[in-house]
Amino acid sequence: MLRRQPEILDANRADVEAARSTIKESLLDRLRLDEKRLYAAADAVRSIAAMNDPIGEVVKSWTRPNRLRIERQRIPLGVIAIIYESRPHVTTDAAALCLRAGNATILRGGSEAFRTNQALGQAITDGLGKSALPTKCVQLLPTTDRQALGELLKCEEDIDLVIPRGGEALIRFVGAESRIPVIKHYRGNCHIFVERTADVHAALEVCYNAKVQRPGVCNAVETILIDEAIANSFLPELAKKFAGVELRGDGRACAIVPAINPASDEDFAAEFLDLICAVGIVDNFDAAVAHIERFGSSHSEAILTRDENLARRFVNEVNSSTVLVNASTRFADGGELGLGAEIGVSTTRLHAYGPMGAEELTTTKFVVHGDGQIRT
Amino acid sequence: MLRRQPEILDANRADVEAARSTIKESLLDRLRLDEKRLYAAADAVRSIAAMNDPIGEVVKSWTRPNRLRIERQRIPLGVIAIIYESRPHVTTDAAALCLRAGNATILRGGSEAFRTNQALGQAITDGLGKSALPTKCVQLLPTTDRQALGELLKCEEDIDLVIPRGGEALIRFVGAESRIPVIKHYRGNCHIFVERTADVHAALEVCYNAKVQRPGVCNAVETILIDEAIANSFLPELAKKFAGVELRGDGRACAIVPAINPASDEDFAAEFLDLICAVGIVDNFDAAVAHIERFGSSHSEAILTRDENLARRFVNEVNSSTVLVNASTRFADGGELGLGAEIGVSTTRLHAYGPMGAEELTTTKFVVHGDGQIRT
Repeated sequence: MLRRQPEILDANRADVEAARSTIKESLLDRLRLDEKRLYAAADAVRSIAAMNDPIGEVVKSWTRPNRLRIERQRIPLGVIAIIYESRPHVTTDAAALCLRAGNATILRGGSEAFRTNQALGQAITDGLGKSALPTKCVQLLPTTDRQALGELLKCEEDIDLVIPRGGEALIRFVGAESRIPVIKHYRGNCHIFVERTADVHAALEVCYNAKVQRPGVCNAVETILIDEAIANSFLPELAKKFAGVELRGDGRACAIVPAINPASDEDFAAEFLDLICAVGIVDNFDAAVAHIERFGSSHSEAILTRDENLARRFVNEVNSSTVLVNASTRFADGGELGLGAEIGVSTTRLHAYGPMGAEELTTTKFVVHGDGQIRT
Repeated sequence: MLRRQPEILDANRADVEAARSTIKESLLDRLRLDEKRLYAAADAVRSIAAMNDPIGEVVKSWTRPNRLRIERQRIPLGVIAIIYESRPHVTTDAAALCLRAGNATILRGGSEAFRTNQALGQAITDGLGKSALPTKCVQLLPTTDRQALGELLKCEEDIDLVIPRGGEALIRFVGAESRIPVIKHYRGNCHIFVERTADVHAALEVCYNAKVQRPGVCNAVETILIDEAIANSFLPELAKKFAGVELRGDGRACAIVPAINPASDEDFAAEFLDLICAVGIVDNFDAAVAHIERFGSSHSEAILTRDENLARRFVNEVNSSTVLVNASTRFADGGELGLGAEIGVSTTRLHAYGPMGAEELTTTKFVVHGDGQIRT
């Protein structure tokens, strides 16, 4: 990939230039590649290549009273189609992760990244050509035409799984059209609940990091809930820290800091993907959990607290795919969680829930070793 | 359930009587309950009740270089709908297993078992009424109307998973109509490959057991492949042992034992669910694997051999959901494999592959414990 760096960066510059007039800056950021990001993408591929091969692993084994030895052995899913939008590093991450788990991959990126993806695809084919693997085990669709995508999604006999990564419209389109099983990643409307016993200094840093470090991604926080007991002191400090971020608050928040704009229910449900943050004041722990239950997207929620009992309750009562105690929601990411890399974040519970790494692209079969056992 | 034994057996007798004219004997066997089977069903529920609660289990945990402690914690899937046909023990198995894994369940049995299922459902509601659980956490649809089923399958916001258990027509109907994720169990066209080094006596017993012990179930063998090197001696013995079973063979099999009827490709693809068995003579190990690849249904396949190298190759090269060495295919069953019980056998690879027990009705979330970490 680095050998083709000039072509890749040229192609990316052309894509960014063409997209500049149609998409907003925080989304442009997803599309942009520079030398540093390309190196990071190459590093991600290298670290995936260095991971243990998950295939063949005996996940569990036991022996039955009739001496049958049972094993659950990891095998690939088969052929996986990844349908994604603007982020070009998905191309290399997805190809490498699917390959690491023994799968063949069909990639279909977004039209705004078409040139970049074709250049990355050429680098992948170059690499496969130098390996013992068939070069066709990773294929990039040569078109971003939606009708072609529709046809692809009908190939249920040949494709085992479709993973759409992108906006809700894309995911709903894939979900509605596909005859192939789909793992969906809907909105990331992530919450942080600042509980009354939280370390105020750490809480300000965590909230700021979760919102500002990279606002255009799905694990950025979109709503901060503040325990009523500390709202009068905490909210003004948060508002000061969040200079440059538009805060939208409920009635109580606006009463404490009049500069905050009023928030609607739509704001509390929104995935802003921008320097905008909803703020709500909640009576207590239960009200925070109820708010998350009502507005959350099952992606990632954090509690900031020094009360171990409430931390435990939060972990048990909130069934989002990633639940964090005293840490930024930005850690809800396959790489950060230690999965090596991620192919997406599932917000539905079937097969995989949360960030998906190589293991989530496998399944297991039962292996039974006997010496002539029959069933009586 | 045993407290309502008279009502349940009366209802079952009425169902069996009504079905006698429309379905064949091997399928009637699936519908029939007697005291022994009812006791077995009650025992299955008791053993599920005695199982460890899978919910809350920390499946894996590790610590990141930044001191974040990561856990994968088991949680329920949510609300599961089970759509099934004639076997009434599914009603109690499914309710108990879903409940064991913390899920709510909607049951929709077949019209031929309607009276039996209603009686079993009443027993379940009785039991829930004596527990701390809401009695509505297991619900039996009060109708077997197909339009009502169609409506149920549109409730994607309220139901997390649909598991159809039954014939291919039912499964295709559910797969086509459902907007909810579906775990499918298609045909069980199970194979046994009798390799040239197999213990002949044990092989005859295993083949006989796999075909005859209960021919109407999905893990019964449907095709026996015999290594050409031993076909002249083994096939006549098999034919003798299989008196009462109709054998349908390929050209080579019919040449060795002329009493065998000729088999078509449809026979090799069939799930007979009856005292009928296809027999093929294969040149060697590779030809057996190729035959299974061509005709198999990914359910269960066995090799009978004393060659450890070939046993290993069979396990690695055949990716059916259960792969057995020197054991009857009839062990491809959640209870027999030690899962406690089973809710079905998935022949597609997403989420679960093979017999599904309580663990397969759960998922995991990531739990992250920090002390104020932010992402840099």
